[in-house]
Amino acid sequence: MIETDILIIGAGPTGLFAVFEAGLLQLKCHLIDALPQAGGQCSEIYPKKPIYDIPGFPEVLAGDLVDNLMEQIKPFEPGFTLGERAQTIDTLEDGTFVVTTNKGTKHHAPVVAIAGGLGSFEPRKPPLDNLKRYEDNGLAYIIKDPEVYRNKKVVIAGGGDSALDWSIFLTDVASEVTLVHRRNEFRGALDSVEKVQQLKNQGKINLITPAEVTALHGAEKLEGISISKTANAQEDILLETDSFIPLFGLSPKLGPIADWGLDIERNAIKVNTFDYQTNVPGIYAIGDVNTYPGKLKLILCGFHEATLMCQSAYQRIHPDKKYVMKYTTVGGVTGFDGSKKEAPKAVVKAIE
Amino acid sequence: MIETDILIIGAGPTGLFAVFEAGLLQLKCHLIDALPQAGGQCSEIYPKKPIYDIPGFPEVLAGDLVDNLMEQIKPFEPGFTLGERAQTIDTLEDGTFVVTTNKGTKHHAPVVAIAGGLGSFEPRKPPLDNLKRYEDNGLAYIIKDPEVYRNKKVVIAGGGDSALDWSIFLTDVASEVTLVHRRNEFRGALDSVEKVQQLKNQGKINLITPAEVTALHGAEKLEGISISKTANAQEDILLETDSFIPLFGLSPKLGPIADWGLDIERNAIKVNTFDYQTNVPGIYAIGDVNTYPGKLKLILCGFHEATLMCQSAYQRIHPDKKYVMKYTTVGGVTGFDGSKKEAPKAVVKAIE
Repeated sequence: MIETDILIIGAGPTGLFAVFEAGLLQLKCHLIDALPQAGGQCSEIYPKKPIYDIPGFPEVLAGDLVDNLMEQIKPFEPGFTLGERAQTIDTLEDGTFVVTTNKGTKHHAPVVAIAGGLGSFEPRKPPLDNLKRYEDNGLAYIIKDPEVYRNKKVVIAGGGDSALDWSIFLTDVASEVTLVHRRNEFRGALDSVEKVQQLKNQGKINLITPAEVTALHGAEKLEGISISKTANAQEDILLETDSFIPLFGLSPKLGPIADWGLDIERNAIKVNTFDYQTNVPGIYAIGDVNTYPGKLKLILCGFHEATLMCQSAYQRIHPDKKYVMKYTTVGGVTGFDGSKKEAPKAVVKAIE
Repeated sequence: MIETDILIIGAGPTGLFAVFEAGLLQLKCHLIDALPQAGGQCSEIYPKKPIYDIPGFPEVLAGDLVDNLMEQIKPFEPGFTLGERAQTIDTLEDGTFVVTTNKGTKHHAPVVAIAGGLGSFEPRKPPLDNLKRYEDNGLAYIIKDPEVYRNKKVVIAGGGDSALDWSIFLTDVASEVTLVHRRNEFRGALDSVEKVQQLKNQGKINLITPAEVTALHGAEKLEGISISKTANAQEDILLETDSFIPLFGLSPKLGPIADWGLDIERNAIKVNTFDYQTNVPGIYAIGDVNTYPGKLKLILCGFHEATLMCQSAYQRIHPDKKYVMKYTTVGGVTGFDGSKKEAPKAVVKAIE
């Protein structure tokens, strides 16, 4: 059982910044995210895209914003359960919560803050039979660790940035890379499209277009796939492969959280604007996942919501203590790792 | 008469960021501030102090944060009325407002956003007779333009960073610099204290301590001051000078805004948390100057409040238009100066 003060569901920018504000109050956080790394959409969907409306940054790449936030919260040593989806919540007799993931990992905390963004990003799956049978047995929808594919035969399907970029990356790892797409045209960064063209010309990527994967084969694990060249129905290919990775994008789903007994309105969790608490005391919702009159789904609003949530969480966890807010400019930042950051103090010194 | 869409009272971080969010909605802003430069406290009180709780910045100097914000809002060409205090507000028949400063500058706008921080910073004045007579005639409490003191005799009073730093700076400008302080001990950055010691040893700063200025002299303008060496009451000095600058710190006062008919609670303006509007429709209050249940006086909260305020201001200014929020990551930023920032678009390209 993982124990923490504030259990944060969702490790996007809002969830990450909550760790900092909680840390200032000496509260410890643990984050759960279905994606294999922290950063939410910023890392998974658009790490190389510039954002222009983060206050104080005329321009910042989404991936850099996440790196900065990770650096900012480092002194507060957050815990992470990544690649697992928060599935169920149980309220104990003392009012604390146990959240269990789809892989059975259990987390116990007096406060739960849902920073779930647009929901957990579920991969779009191809319309094939037997998907379940091959999942984790050669079939994957997200690449968590590219080393898994070392010296293996890999088939990627898709026509966007993910399909292009992973095809490029895996040419240095896998023994054979095949890219299947239902059109000849790819949609991605110019660099990536040109690089794939070049690797194809060098024979390092086996490109099959326009085509679709129509069946998966193998007894214990994936051993081969059928590909139909859609321009010519008669030309069907049976390809041996160790892995099939359809990268058809991610679609956000509120998912199991929708069944946690929270007031939901248009796929978002209703909160008050005093402390961004839901209808269940002790469960808060911050960032894009919540809704209230005037709500804007902006990262900068999530930062504010996370901050007010932490103040309320502090009072819930320490009902007997009176917290007096300190400014970091005056009080500095004392990390759980023993680090201390503070402004140089003024000296009092006589001039002779 | 200065015309604008949103008239912002206070050019601290919150007021500055409001310009950006307004700009995204194609609304133009003009800012009034009693201080001679933008940035509020961050520029005037602690430009060299690090702030640790701006999201995405593990550490940022207050002055750098202001520079970044100025860069971020540049495309939206804000207007500034600096060194003047917003004094009176008049509501015209059509519901728009005219705000007049203490120097008589008039501004006309359909929306007023008070981002006044802790209030306008009023200098603490020494307890001397005839202060009014010499103000702007040799007596100043803030140094707006150091060139005014070129080749003049200057007396500075005070024992903090401002007194130290301006004394150092003016040795290269004024013909004579005298620093008077009621103690031998100074309180400031170590660098500054040591530099003053060194300049005193070189005879470039005339240091009189412990001492107090007890009287101002001169017919039309300031010509001399009396200084009493407090350790020895008999030792009074009459010093010829062109300028006397007591730098005893600034103390925030809500000031004339307190008389604008707004609901005030403990020196702060009451607002709702839907759009941070006051009890007077069309007048908003954002940042440290406002109050509501759960309010935290943090810069990051001001950013959020400014953003929601702009959405509401848009609806007030364009009641007939339906605004659909666009993300800067998708839509980019189009400046009033014709500049355009946007993410590189994905290409659609066949791979042969």
